[in-house]
Amino acid sequence: MIEKRTPIPVGDAVNRVMKFAGTGKIESVPLQQAYGRFLAVDLIADHDIPAFDRSPYDGFAIRSEDTLGKKRVMLQVAGEIGAGSLHTKPAEPFEAVRIMTGAAIPKGFDAVVMLELVKEHTKEGKKLIELNRAYNKGDNVSFKGEDTQEGTVLVKKGTVINAGISALLAAFGYHQVPVSVKPVIGVIATGSELLEVEEALEPGKIRNSNAYMILSQIERAGAEALYFGKLKDDFDSCYKTIQKAMEQVDLLITTGGVSVGDYDYLPAIYEKLNAAVLFNKVAMRPGSVTTVAEVNGKLLFGLSGNPSACYVGFELFARPVIRKSQGNKQPHLKKVKAVLGADFKKANPFMRFVRGRIDFEEDGRISVTPSGFNKSSAVSSLADADAFILLPGGTRGYEKGMLVDALLLNDVSGSEWPWENIVPSYR
Amino acid sequence: MIEKRTPIPVGDAVNRVMKFAGTGKIESVPLQQAYGRFLAVDLIADHDIPAFDRSPYDGFAIRSEDTLGKKRVMLQVAGEIGAGSLHTKPAEPFEAVRIMTGAAIPKGFDAVVMLELVKEHTKEGKKLIELNRAYNKGDNVSFKGEDTQEGTVLVKKGTVINAGISALLAAFGYHQVPVSVKPVIGVIATGSELLEVEEALEPGKIRNSNAYMILSQIERAGAEALYFGKLKDDFDSCYKTIQKAMEQVDLLITTGGVSVGDYDYLPAIYEKLNAAVLFNKVAMRPGSVTTVAEVNGKLLFGLSGNPSACYVGFELFARPVIRKSQGNKQPHLKKVKAVLGADFKKANPFMRFVRGRIDFEEDGRISVTPSGFNKSSAVSSLADADAFILLPGGTRGYEKGMLVDALLLNDVSGSEWPWENIVPSYR
Repeated sequence: MIEKRTPIPVGDAVNRVMKFAGTGKIESVPLQQAYGRFLAVDLIADHDIPAFDRSPYDGFAIRSEDTLGKKRVMLQVAGEIGAGSLHTKPAEPFEAVRIMTGAAIPKGFDAVVMLELVKEHTKEGKKLIELNRAYNKGDNVSFKGEDTQEGTVLVKKGTVINAGISALLAAFGYHQVPVSVKPVIGVIATGSELLEVEEALEPGKIRNSNAYMILSQIERAGAEALYFGKLKDDFDSCYKTIQKAMEQVDLLITTGGVSVGDYDYLPAIYEKLNAAVLFNKVAMRPGSVTTVAEVNGKLLFGLSGNPSACYVGFELFARPVIRKSQGNKQPHLKKVKAVLGADFKKANPFMRFVRGRIDFEEDGRISVTPSGFNKSSAVSSLADADAFILLPGGTRGYEKGMLVDALLLNDVSGSEWPWENIVPSYR
Repeated sequence: MIEKRTPIPVGDAVNRVMKFAGTGKIESVPLQQAYGRFLAVDLIADHDIPAFDRSPYDGFAIRSEDTLGKKRVMLQVAGEIGAGSLHTKPAEPFEAVRIMTGAAIPKGFDAVVMLELVKEHTKEGKKLIELNRAYNKGDNVSFKGEDTQEGTVLVKKGTVINAGISALLAAFGYHQVPVSVKPVIGVIATGSELLEVEEALEPGKIRNSNAYMILSQIERAGAEALYFGKLKDDFDSCYKTIQKAMEQVDLLITTGGVSVGDYDYLPAIYEKLNAAVLFNKVAMRPGSVTTVAEVNGKLLFGLSGNPSACYVGFELFARPVIRKSQGNKQPHLKKVKAVLGADFKKANPFMRFVRGRIDFEEDGRISVTPSGFNKSSAVSSLADADAFILLPGGTRGYEKGMLVDALLLNDVSGSEWPWENIVPSYR
């Protein structure tokens, strides 16, 4: 007898999973190792940047009033300030101070003249400069706080640390950076047909490719992968390995064995684990058999054994859990509008996720085209894909040139909730 | 006396640098560690995928001729094949074989009926199945080679390994993966005004943020960073540290000290190192003082001490060298067309690189808007930027709504050569 399963919409399925996305712990890492991690606190400016009025150029600090209305003026050079040093002598009329890029404008001076615009003279052992125009107060001054004012929230908690954020963390003294601890994601491949990567091919068997694919997807999503190997379709050994693995990880992913066939042991294993099955059928192609269960608050993802279905299942369900648990506010794949590059005339009642490639067109639009062979069992099209073309289910198909939604696979910014306002099948 | 420097166009400058981008060595890493690395060989399919005709579903393998023209037919179940096992008994008329997803279609059978569409019966101890329609040869069969044919170049040398490529590498038996050795990039920050990140602020001084920014940029570009610390503006110590560092790295980056001021020692250091200066002035904003020199075939990048100028200099000149030396064919930042989100009415003779943010619009277009404060000294705008807005120099400005070029900072695909056909200032 085969079990009857009721498919639920993708958005509902994602919703059920996200309820169990926990809040991870925080750890402190050296700034040099913080790149790519999720910041665990709001980064707030504790001082102005610049912290003082400074010179953006090599040149001379002057008193603008000395040049007022003049076409030519001579100023005496009263000192020299390298970046990082200070000039504290009170300013006198018709004095200038040699100043380097980044140095503090000395008190009493209020403008900077670039080195290139000055004629230097020496007279009776004294250094003089000749200016050929008037300057206004503030000319060529980088003002205190003009970049960033004290108290500004510069980066929000949960943001992925990029190169610019590394610079800000340094500027505000974060030698150690509070980041979210990476969740540990376990991976188990199941299927008696699987060979190890280093084994020679045998009739009827294939090499285990899903596990390595998921290990890479875990890395891209920002978590730590723990690989438990591949298992034959055998209830007892699968049960024991899964039970033991669950203790060592924050979240466990299996591939294969979730369908309704005689060798699909995962449903029985969920039962024996006392797992609450959140869903076991999703109205999507590929990956309709994707199953997620929960045991004592931990999620157990049963992804399809078909490579494309497995890939899609990870990105839709596991990725956002990984990112949300690290405080990220846009944990889902980034959804964008794009011009469809091919016909999909055959209607499908389920929402389709076609592996595709984004192209940037000359008119500023983006288009998205299926990348190669697109069955759920396909491996080759995944190498080239950087997006899923999102085709909601319905009674009509889609035509080349239509505006559709696409989910970006390599984007780091993400979407808050992509499962609303999706372009439907045309009428 | 200040030195007169002649600015050269950005494309010419990039060209001069790229001539010295070497070809890196190859190493072999375990498949689990290959994600994000540059593949060092073409990945060629050494067998078909699938390697045999297989069943995409759980169900029964049948002989289509037994169903020809029939509305109802009973078949006897002659055996059962799990995925990975084989059925070798010769096929007899009106026989079917129970088959699991992924299993090889046994010889003599030519179609598959899904489990859900079959009625199972038992009669005199024999298993029978009842079908209610006719099937054609090939129905529900995944044919040998339909995904990938033997001999196909699946992934080209120099491509960054993504999750889909990990799957392909596994499928073709790459337990160890040949990848390019990551070049080692040295970083030295110069400037007497620099404090360590953990030091308290002092009047006239700033914390060293450029070095940490570049360390992150190096990681994003796919190289190994080696940080030599920060140096005061002192000729001898700078010279010695740079000379020693050059021996330990494939490429050295310094920040600060490349301008024409009295504390800018880098030009003199290049001279003492017998370095050939490729350029020391580029017609760009920010970063016009960006200097690149070559010593015994090794590149020495003198980036500006201004954070934004430093950031731009790295992405334009160092990033493509890092990627090209690992065999990548599109080493430059990806160039795309986008709608400008703000006015830049003031003309500038130099090409501008404005730090901006990409937005995906509802009509399928992308737009790009300046991210915050945009002086060359700015730090805060870098945190939020995911693109450079590329505004070529000219005698007119740019207006909101115009189509401009943008360079994407987080994209992994890249451009082969972005420095041609750039949208010019409007006439």
